[in-house]
Amino acid sequence: MTASPLPRVMLEPVVRAALLEDLGRAGDITTDAIVPAGQRATTALVARQPGVVAGLDLAILAFQLIEPAIAIRVERPDGSALQPGDVVAEISGPARGVLTAERVALNFLGHLSGIASATAAIVAAVRPHKARITCTRKTMPGMRALQKYALRVGGGSNHRFGLDDAVLIKDNHVAIAGGIRPALERARDAVGHLVKIELEVDTLAQLEEALSIGVDAVLLDNMAPPMLREAVGMVAGRAITEASGRVTPATAPAIAATGVDLISIGWLTHSSAVLDIGLDYKAE
Amino acid sequence: MTASPLPRVMLEPVVRAALLEDLGRAGDITTDAIVPAGQRATTALVARQPGVVAGLDLAILAFQLIEPAIAIRVERPDGSALQPGDVVAEISGPARGVLTAERVALNFLGHLSGIASATAAIVAAVRPHKARITCTRKTMPGMRALQKYALRVGGGSNHRFGLDDAVLIKDNHVAIAGGIRPALERARDAVGHLVKIELEVDTLAQLEEALSIGVDAVLLDNMAPPMLREAVGMVAGRAITEASGRVTPATAPAIAATGVDLISIGWLTHSSAVLDIGLDYKAE
Amino acid sequence: MTASPLPRVMLEPVVRAALLEDLGRAGDITTDAIVPAGQRATTALVARQPGVVAGLDLAILAFQLIEPAIAIRVERPDGSALQPGDVVAEISGPARGVLTAERVALNFLGHLSGIASATAAIVAAVRPHKARITCTRKTMPGMRALQKYALRVGGGSNHRFGLDDAVLIKDNHVAIAGGIRPALERARDAVGHLVKIELEVDTLAQLEEALSIGVDAVLLDNMAPPMLREAVGMVAGRAITEASGRVTPATAPAIAATGVDLISIGWLTHSSAVLDIGLDYKAE
Amino acid sequence: MTASPLPRVMLEPVVRAALLEDLGRAGDITTDAIVPAGQRATTALVARQPGVVAGLDLAILAFQLIEPAIAIRVERPDGSALQPGDVVAEISGPARGVLTAERVALNFLGHLSGIASATAAIVAAVRPHKARITCTRKTMPGMRALQKYALRVGGGSNHRFGLDDAVLIKDNHVAIAGGIRPALERARDAVGHLVKIELEVDTLAQLEEALSIGVDAVLLDNMAPPMLREAVGMVAGRAITEASGRVTPATAPAIAATGVDLISIGWLTHSSAVLDIGLDYKAE
Amino acid sequence: MTASPLPRVMLEPVVRAALLEDLGRAGDITTDAIVPAGQRATTALVARQPGVVAGLDLAILAFQLIEPAIAIRVERPDGSALQPGDVVAEISGPARGVLTAERVALNFLGHLSGIASATAAIVAAVRPHKARITCTRKTMPGMRALQKYALRVGGGSNHRFGLDDAVLIKDNHVAIAGGIRPALERARDAVGHLVKIELEVDTLAQLEEALSIGVDAVLLDNMAPPMLREAVGMVAGRAITEASGRVTPATAPAIAATGVDLISIGWLTHSSAVLDIGLDYKAE
Amino acid sequence: MTASPLPRVMLEPVVRAALLEDLGRAGDITTDAIVPAGQRATTALVARQPGVVAGLDLAILAFQLIEPAIAIRVERPDGSALQPGDVVAEISGPARGVLTAERVALNFLGHLSGIASATAAIVAAVRPHKARITCTRKTMPGMRALQKYALRVGGGSNHRFGLDDAVLIKDNHVAIAGGIRPALERARDAVGHLVKIELEVDTLAQLEEALSIGVDAVLLDNMAPPMLREAVGMVAGRAITEASGRVTPATAPAIAATGVDLISIGWLTHSSAVLDIGLDYKAE
Repeated sequence: MTASPLPRVMLEPVVRAALLEDLGRAGDITTDAIVPAGQRATTALVARQPGVVAGLDLAILAFQLIEPAIAIRVERPDGSALQPGDVVAEISGPARGVLTAERVALNFLGHLSGIASATAAIVAAVRPHKARITCTRKTMPGMRALQKYALRVGGGSNHRFGLDDAVLIKDNHVAIAGGIRPALERARDAVGHLVKIELEVDTLAQLEEALSIGVDAVLLDNMAPPMLREAVGMVAGRAITEASGRVTPATAPAIAATGVDLISIGWLTHSSAVLDIGLDYKAE
Repeated sequence: MTASPLPRVMLEPVVRAALLEDLGRAGDITTDAIVPAGQRATTALVARQPGVVAGLDLAILAFQLIEPAIAIRVERPDGSALQPGDVVAEISGPARGVLTAERVALNFLGHLSGIASATAAIVAAVRPHKARITCTRKTMPGMRALQKYALRVGGGSNHRFGLDDAVLIKDNHVAIAGGIRPALERARDAVGHLVKIELEVDTLAQLEEALSIGVDAVLLDNMAPPMLREAVGMVAGRAITEASGRVTPATAPAIAATGVDLISIGWLTHSSAVLDIGLDYKAE
Repeated sequence: MTASPLPRVMLEPVVRAALLEDLGRAGDITTDAIVPAGQRATTALVARQPGVVAGLDLAILAFQLIEPAIAIRVERPDGSALQPGDVVAEISGPARGVLTAERVALNFLGHLSGIASATAAIVAAVRPHKARITCTRKTMPGMRALQKYALRVGGGSNHRFGLDDAVLIKDNHVAIAGGIRPALERARDAVGHLVKIELEVDTLAQLEEALSIGVDAVLLDNMAPPMLREAVGMVAGRAITEASGRVTPATAPAIAATGVDLISIGWLTHSSAVLDIGLDYKAE
Repeated sequence: MTASPLPRVMLEPVVRAALLEDLGRAGDITTDAIVPAGQRATTALVARQPGVVAGLDLAILAFQLIEPAIAIRVERPDGSALQPGDVVAEISGPARGVLTAERVALNFLGHLSGIASATAAIVAAVRPHKARITCTRKTMPGMRALQKYALRVGGGSNHRFGLDDAVLIKDNHVAIAGGIRPALERARDAVGHLVKIELEVDTLAQLEEALSIGVDAVLLDNMAPPMLREAVGMVAGRAITEASGRVTPATAPAIAATGVDLISIGWLTHSSAVLDIGLDYKAE
Repeated sequence: MTASPLPRVMLEPVVRAALLEDLGRAGDITTDAIVPAGQRATTALVARQPGVVAGLDLAILAFQLIEPAIAIRVERPDGSALQPGDVVAEISGPARGVLTAERVALNFLGHLSGIASATAAIVAAVRPHKARITCTRKTMPGMRALQKYALRVGGGSNHRFGLDDAVLIKDNHVAIAGGIRPALERARDAVGHLVKIELEVDTLAQLEEALSIGVDAVLLDNMAPPMLREAVGMVAGRAITEASGRVTPATAPAIAATGVDLISIGWLTHSSAVLDIGLDYKAE
Repeated sequence: MTASPLPRVMLEPVVRAALLEDLGRAGDITTDAIVPAGQRATTALVARQPGVVAGLDLAILAFQLIEPAIAIRVERPDGSALQPGDVVAEISGPARGVLTAERVALNFLGHLSGIASATAAIVAAVRPHKARITCTRKTMPGMRALQKYALRVGGGSNHRFGLDDAVLIKDNHVAIAGGIRPALERARDAVGHLVKIELEVDTLAQLEEALSIGVDAVLLDNMAPPMLREAVGMVAGRAITEASGRVTPATAPAIAATGVDLISIGWLTHSSAVLDIGLDYKAE
């Protein structure tokens, strides 16, 4: 599975905002003072850690919105595996523009590559099994579309993008509704024909009730592998099964082995560490 | 040192954007389907990990922009130390609004508290020493002002906010300028009287040259503690000294012990893990 | 089924934009010249045609963003059936504000009530049958969330909100993919577990192929009622069935009688006539 | 009379907003899944109804903002008469871009062509007479500049663009002012020398009073043709005459025959049906 | 003539933008460091020069958007004459908020009062005559609506607000059109019935030609008083007459004495000096 | 010292906003009516007064955002000295675009050149002395970055850009803090290592206290030259000295002669008159 690039019309506003956040009211006063206007630079985005590239289009936009004369030669597009020293892209052109855009470009690239890399690691860890790795709505404000894109680049599969594109009935909804049946029935009544309904269940009794009513997917929250395995057996293909609850690279394989369809992991988007990618300068 | 709250006029645009990102084009279809319009809820923001609160104003805005009738009682304002089970604030009002705003509120609160907590931990680790902990421009796009605020809440001290509020001369600037002297002189010529100039040095020879010319601060990059100590001695109070380079909680105390004025740490803003704060529901 | 109101945070930007579009650079020069600042007015939003109200929250916001001192008493909230002469709401307060906001308020209210009313008429026409009325992406630019909301108010059920919340494979996608099977398989591979897949079919042979592969919903495009009935029989509950193609109030009942689950109608959002609602003044 | 194109700087924000409304947070998931990145398509915008083209620049922008490599060959620019089957423009380039932008492009083109076509039909119906067809402020929120442009393309003439560019004194203004004289005098006092003043009159007595005071234009509201004719005779060229009140293609000619200068029609902008223009694909 | 206040919906975006421009990414670091959170202040906006107040609503918004608890007591609303020492308004509340908003509030108030004061001075200078003082499109980017409002407050009368609300045919238009007649005829053909047409003339021959064709207003550019007087005589009430060309307080009376209807002055908006209004603190 | 150009990403939003402010809802109705679409024009930006150019990039953007086919040949870039008749740039291309963008281009160019010119005059007046000319936060709302850039072009040096990039302790801060010592100590405690602290002093006693505590810069407010000279002597290089208080071209040299490092002048940004630069047309 390959993640398709997002259209520029989606990326440009966020890159412009990030550049303005960094330029402030006076621009890059260091570079403007020190680097002559005519000076050129040839540089390369270079991996300093193993991982997976994501966000290169944003980095490219950062350079080119600052200076259209900057030329980019992509060596390893989004989704490529990286080893330390690997060149992601060569960036060359007016030195001022390269230096001014550098940090914004790296901030996007490092953050999204970090998510892609962490995702890819978990995807690899569960590979013998069919379980797909998915995400949550625990994302950085303003970055959801990009973070979910990075997760796709890493081989993950996206969960809901917001409150509006699928129904996810959690324990509090059930409590307020007065039970699983009224919650499911109200939801089915209210939503369009292309909207799926998922229900969080904490016990096998809840699962049985949900299956008897009918539901598209069940979120098996915080169940240990033996219970998960029993749940998957009970479902018997009648609903999509998703396991969640503080999954780590260490615990993921045992969860995947239970036969669940998906494992959702919040920290992939909210707490992945940045992948270290730097910009190396060569003389010109 | 206490961090003053940022004015609402700075917070509101980012909270509105985060809410719209989550509401999408149809709003919270789950809650709207299941929770009766008149239903009320009393809930509490509760710490599930030890740490330091930051971002409560943003969480409050998220609830109140969705539903002005939601009442908030703050128990532990930004900067408070948290133990698992501690209530940060009580949130009560129309149940629909509470449920709809919950995730956005928690995303701000968890992320910023994560930064504050990690900062506070390092600050505590270096406490016997005078070194202050500072940050970098390695921030999440669109979040710089908030992340730097969280670092202040955690007891840290802010570095530059952008390319425009201080001069930071890095190795590439020096290389392009043809040496430390022309770089420093061009910078001093170009900037206003309230702008400080900091220079990155990698060797003691560079440091000596910089001190002989005069500079406000020196960034001692990737030096081991013995060399740092020597550098601090050479500086002898003529410039502010900042140590940087992959500092961890484990390595920070030894660095602080060298007598540097500041230790800068990029991962505090770009890779801190979220602090786990949840919203607990009580019946109503 | 009742449509829940959208949160104000979603409505406010579009109402502010509409007010600014009307106020231009000098504001309401007629009212400012003629109406004394202290003058008050009591007025009522009154239906001049039978129909269904939708968009009252937007009209209220228009009045209150121009003049917070305007008081509103709602008589018939969104979803109410209207007869000519029925009062939707009473609007009273400073006369300048009432007159200045009037047109923007009525533009929202008339347009959305027009959609709700047309939808309700078709919904009523197909009532003995189970078919739900749904919409398309043929909406006015910038108005999709509001128009789809109005359709819900009228008793309709929403189709996709955008290109991103469900897969709808059309004839051109099939042609480019080289057949129904590769199109369906690529789609299933690429999307998240909460995304449904719908396929447009023009013939019963295509339908048979789609059912043999498996699909969540089929769009039966431009089929006459006898063929629709046959298609519904073939599907036998294995997929959701949606009929489309220039449906009118006159043709809808026969289509509904074929047993399809949904009838989609583009003109409800792109060409519904405004419902005539006026603002009547009373002396004060 | 030909309508000049609006500058791109006015069109781009609304097209960008419409594209983002459709792309949501994940982009065109159907096309991205099914259509290979390298695939090209040659397509044509084809009329399926007779009418008049308007909005082609917006459609072109939609395609090119999604994919700059899409080439457009315009066959029938804005203002051209269309017969079913007529090609408006040929659109060719990367298939993904063409499919992704299609709906937004058609939404602009169909809506604005609908207005231009309805306007052109009324303009033709009144042709033997001098009366020009004009519009109102009953427009779709956010679309006023575009809808008024479409009316110009159809041969109409624009009324006020907002509350600020001309004075239009309605019955409620007169009532609050305490008569026609104070209303007209206050208006004349208050506005700049390039602002015209129009007054709504419902009776010939009001008309006589207005003419005796002096006014640039009179809006003859809801008068039957014989009364209109009498009003035009009374005015005798001393003011511009505008007839209004539920004008239809059937009633327009008789109104025009009374000699009025303008006939204003609200439904042209608020309730015109979309003109059916589709995008036909050809293999490549 | 009194200028009506502009609705808050027009003022709020520009005040928010000005506050954010000043707050930057860290807020008011001086005040936050030094002023205790609980401290209150009572202050007054005090004139230091004679003049006319304009822009008080913007100043009030600046204070209240920073701190809703700030109370304002208006002593001299927009349009009031000021003598040195006069209190415009009393501002009291949390000291931090008062200090943080002060500069933005004064920037609006000083600039707009400067325009109102300069306008009032010229208006007074020409008072025995009927000539009204008007403005141009020579305004500060982003400030046109506010600057034109300030001119109204000072007793002036507004010219065009933009390129779209009236026709102003200048020498270059005439040259390109090939003469006054084709220029006037094309303009009359193209525009709506509420749009006035003004023509710039430099000679009496041009004026004669324009009057023979018919025009709403003539801009008599750079004519000395004797020639202006002759022009006014030739016009004899058939068009509005506007004199322009580097008018100063010294030259305005003689120009007004020629009988022209309007005198337009670009520097009132583009080069008026700020009126000195300060914020005086009292202990609390 | 040369001012580096600001990156286009900073200029484009303000130019787009200015164009939309002028185009309104109908665009340039005069030019569209009168000038044929194919007509070309060759024109030149010509100085009508001596001065210094600033803002040419904004003027160029105004032309090119309206019409990309307009070609610009720069003759005198920002910072060039101008004599009346000097050509700043030649602008040629489609006549409609040139005429439509003219006013917005000139508004930026005239205003910023006005600031640069006034600054250059003062800079020249104090030249024998070391004093640099600096600005304040008394700027036009929304124009701060541009106005401060213009001051740099004129040879000035920038003061704070906002409330957040340096500490400036004024008399009210001192009063509220209860003295100079607590004010300075709280500030030093609160801010980052790259933030300088400046203190306003009105008397030599205050200055002495400040120097004894330590401060980066002192603002010597409203002191006459003899007292300024004494203050400079007391400081003896221990702090940067800035003189302020209604400085004019006439008084500046005597102030500079006292040996102060900086002279700050508010009116350079808030009240500079526009530099008269026009657009001359040549036939084509």
